Formats: sequence, structure tokens, C-alpha cells
Amino acid sequence: MRQLQLIGVGAGDPEQLTLQAISALRSIDVVFVVDKSDPGESADHLARWREELLRRHRPDGDCQVVTIIDPRRNRAPHGQAGYEHAVRDWHAARAGAYEDAFAAVAPDATGAFLVWGDPSLYDSTIRIVQDVLARGRVSFDWTVIPGVSSLHALTAAHRIVLHGIGRPVALTTGRRLADDGWPGRPGEFDDVVVLLNSDLSALEQLDPAGLTIHWAANLGTPGQALAAGPLSETLPRIEALREQVKREQGWVLDLYLLRRRP
Amino acid sequence: MRQLQLIGVGAGDPEQLTLQAISALRSIDVVFVVDKSDPGESADHLARWREELLRRHRPDGDCQVVTIIDPRRNRAPHGQAGYEHAVRDWHAARAGAYEDAFAAVAPDATGAFLVWGDPSLYDSTIRIVQDVLARGRVSFDWTVIPGVSSLHALTAAHRIVLHGIGRPVALTTGRRLADDGWPGRPGEFDDVVVLLNSDLSALEQLDPAGLTIHWAANLGTPGQALAAGPLSETLPRIEALREQVKREQGWVLDLYLLRRRP
Ligand SMILES: C[S@@+](CC[C@H](N)C(=O)[O-])C[C@H]1O[C@@H](n2cnc3c(N)ncnc32)[C@H](O)[C@@H]1O
Ligand SMILES: C[S@@+](CC[C@H](N)C(=O)[O-])C[C@H]1O[C@@H](n2cnc3c(N)ncnc32)[C@H](O)[C@@H]1O
Repeated sequence: MRQLQLIGVGAGDPEQLTLQAISALRSIDVVFVVDKSDPGESADHLARWREELLRRHRPDGDCQVVTIIDPRRNRAPHGQAGYEHAVRDWHAARAGAYEDAFAAVAPDATGAFLVWGDPSLYDSTIRIVQDVLARGRVSFDWTVIPGVSSLHALTAAHRIVLHGIGRPVALTTGRRLADDGWPGRPGEFDDVVVLLNSDLSALEQLDPAGLTIHWAANLGTPGQALAAGPLSETLPRIEALREQVKREQGWVLDLYLLRRRP
Repeated sequence: MRQLQLIGVGAGDPEQLTLQAISALRSIDVVFVVDKSDPGESADHLARWREELLRRHRPDGDCQVVTIIDPRRNRAPHGQAGYEHAVRDWHAARAGAYEDAFAAVAPDATGAFLVWGDPSLYDSTIRIVQDVLARGRVSFDWTVIPGVSSLHALTAAHRIVLHGIGRPVALTTGRRLADDGWPGRPGEFDDVVVLLNSDLSALEQLDPAGLTIHWAANLGTPGQALAAGPLSETLPRIEALREQVKREQGWVLDLYLLRRRP
């Protein structure tokens, strides 16, 4: 493989593709598709969506699809040492699987990953490519093409800004919010974006006084759902909407901005 | 004015425009351009860049440009009460200036702002439109079109991710970093992005032990400059590059990711 492109393709709306991403899509010979052994409900949707992008921007059909089987992770190792060992093994196995796929491609080919949203935001493709290159068995040029992330899709859908005037913003995960509580020192962060939510339990643990939420699920897709308002009165509606989206679409990806105002 | 579109147009590279932004550019009748009474050095560049976007995507030339004079802010008020008063006056004057411009447009026209990067990230256009609508004199539909922000342009140019695995990220300003120091509770944030830097003095105040920096200026433009490495040894190079970019391009916009690793 001569070159690898990690193409940010937007977080759901095919109209959010950039000119740069389209040029890249037109130039590639191979698309790598990762088949996770424990797929989320959204895997099917993502696969269909990727096919649609290719159909639309590569009507020649002249782009080979290569599937990489993501090795399964041992999720029940014993103790901290066992845990670290398991993670190390898994990372090595994963880099190996990607490496094999890259090595099997024609030496003058350009490969690509179509990365959901922006490749730098809670996505592991960049990290895996760095791991593969560090192993030294294969080598290639690579580029990253930024995309519209779900962060920006969220705020655009709600027509809001992320930040208070001159104030900082925290990006975190549902797991972190549940484990660590509101981020920062007292009074430091008034605006917190939460991604990677397997459920909404992190919200139930917060003191809702003074908090508003802007929530969105399946942004940019026909199943998009939005809700906003004071946390306490909006949460039941969000819970119902989330269930409904999941039931009707078969999958749900959601994120939200929590805003604290005196 | 029937409709207003706030169009995120990417943070420098005209190839980072989305299909959605291009469709919007093709549909508008009026572009509002804000003339700041205390322009940054980049104002000329931004104006030229906006004209280029219009030339490229509106070859018909059939899009009126309306200039809004941003009222000057009283930067030397007396005391906290004087300060708050001055800011309130300034916000009201600003909303008034936008309101007048909107009111002067044909009732069936579609207006637009071309917003640098993504409209939700440290930009005030959304907030001003909300202020204008709250005043109740003019009314219109409005939409926000997300863009590729400088945040994502930074990480793509450096081919890095923002986050540690499952870890939070802080977005802040140069002023905040200088005034408040490293964000969060001890050990909480290892990855901090800093925008809106009038200089690099915030970096000089940090303890550089264990810190690396990924810095970029004028991303996506012919004057783009990048530097990365351990903070202590990289800072002098960044300072020199920043001066050089400013001298050669006549303006500099920069941001950076600070990463703390044990
Ligand atoms: C693995 S991360 C990848 C994020 C992606 N790189 C981006 O830039 O948006 C997936 C998380 O992003 C958020 N997300 C991504 N796409 C979304 C969408 N269309 N609607 C709502 N949330 C989304 C959700 O929090 C989801 O759990
Ligand atoms: C007023 S904020 C607006 C940010 C914009 N809305 C965005 O999404 O990137 C301007 C700040 O963004 C950063 N920035 C914007 N464009 C940039 C570029 N092309 N290169 C480097 N930094 C940039 C700088 O920190 C600058 O001071």
C-alpha cells in the first residue's frame, strides 16, 4: 500500500461531507471496513451508510472493500495486572490484523477508512494506524481528513454555542461523568458535552439544580431526535425518546450538552 | 428577511466546505459581513477569503453583500458595575446594528453569515442572532450549518486524536489558561486544547514537565505552520514560527493541544 487516507465523513448526514473528503473518496482503490466481533446495534446501519457513500461518490464501483476482523477482547481478565496484560494482547492482535490487511493490498494502491464524524474525536483508527507503523513491518504515507463531528452536529441542530463567553468547555464520556461526577474544580466548567453513552444513568446521578440539557440522537439521519430544557423536567422525555429511537431505528447514538447557569 | 443561515465554512481550507454549506451558499440572496471597529490583523484576510468563496460558489455574482458596522466597545469602564453596564450597552448596540441590517433586507430574501470554522466554537454570531430575536422587532426562520472547526483541522494536520482512551478533554482560551492554570482537578485532564491566543504567554507560565504540545497556525491556508514536541524544547521554535507567520502573512490565528503524560 502506497498511501492510507483516514477520511472523516461526518456524523450522519451525507450532506456534511467536505469537498476534500469527496476528492479523497474519488482517489482511493481500497476501503477497509472493520468487522467488530461484538458489534453495537449501529454496526449494520454504519455498513449500509458506508455503502451509500461509496455508491454516490464512486459510481464506477471500482473500489475494493476489504474487511478487517477486529479481534475479540478478553473482557474478564483477573486483577489489575491481568487487565493490563489483556489490553496489551488485544492491542497487539488488533494491530496485527490491520497490518495483515494492509500488507495484502497492491503496493501502489491507496487505501482508506471512512471514519464517522471527525477522526480525532473518540475514535481509535488513528491510534491503531500509529501502532501498526510503530511495529515497522509495513510502511506507507498517511493523511487524516477532518470531518464535521457529532459535537458540531449537536450544536447546529440546537442552534446553540458550546461555550459561555470566554469560558472553557469539557468533553467527556457517559462513563466518566457517572464515575467522576461534574468535571473540574468548583465553578470551573459550566458547559460539558457527554459522548459515548450506553445509557442515561450518568444523568440520574447529577443534582439537576441549575442544569439545562441539549440532547440529540441519530443526528443527521432520518431517525434524528432532539430535546432540550431544564434537566429535571426534560430527562423523562429524553428517556422515552431514546427508547423510541432505538426501537424504531434499531440503534441509537446520542450525545448531549449540559449547561450550568446560576 | 424570510430566512437566515449561519453557514460554517471551515477554518481556512476552502476544500473543507461541506456539500450542505455549498447548497446554502447557492440559495442565499444576501451575505452579511461584520466590520469590526477594532479589527484584528486577520480581518483583511477573512474578507478576501469570503470573497473567494462567493466567487467560487456563486459565479452568478447575484448575492448582495451588506456590511454591518460592529459598534465599538467601551474598554475602560470604571469598576465592576461600570464594566457590566458597558458590556450590556455594547450588547444592546450590537443587537441593534444587526437588527437594522436585517430589517433593511427584502421580506422574502434569505440572508447568511459565513462563519469561520464551526459556528458553535468561540464565535458570537449565534448569540447575537438570539439577542436580536429576543428583542422582537424582526423575526425570521434561521438555521445553523455545522462546519469543520479549527479543533478538527488541528488534529488532522498533526494526525493525532484529541483524547486519551476513555478520558476527558478540556477546551479553553489562552486568557483562561494564563489566569487559571491547568484546568480541572489534579490528574483529571491530560488533554487540553487552547484557542484564542493573543500571544503565547500562557505557555511560559506552565510547568513543562511531562507536557507535549501540538501547535498550528493559519491552518488550511498557504501560510500554515505546524510544530510538535516536548513543550520545553518546542516552545522557542513555536515562538519563532509564530512571529514568522505573522510577518509573512500579515496575520496569525493559532491553537494548540497540550498533552500531559506521566
Ligand atoms: C466512538 S464515538 C465517535 C465520534 C465521532 N468520531 C464524531 O466525530 O462524532 C461515538 C459517539 O459519538 C456520538 N455520536 C456520533 N454520531 C452521532 C450522531 N449521529 N448522533 C448522536 N450522537 C452521535 C455518540 O455519543 C456516540 O456514542
Ligand atoms: C473566534 S475563534 C473562532 C473559532 C472557529 N469558530 C472554529 O470553529 O475554528 C478563533 C480562534 O480559533 C482558532 N483558529 C481558527 N482558525 C484557525 C486556523 N486556520 N488556524 C489556527 N487556529 C485557528 C484560533 O485559536 C483563533 O484565535
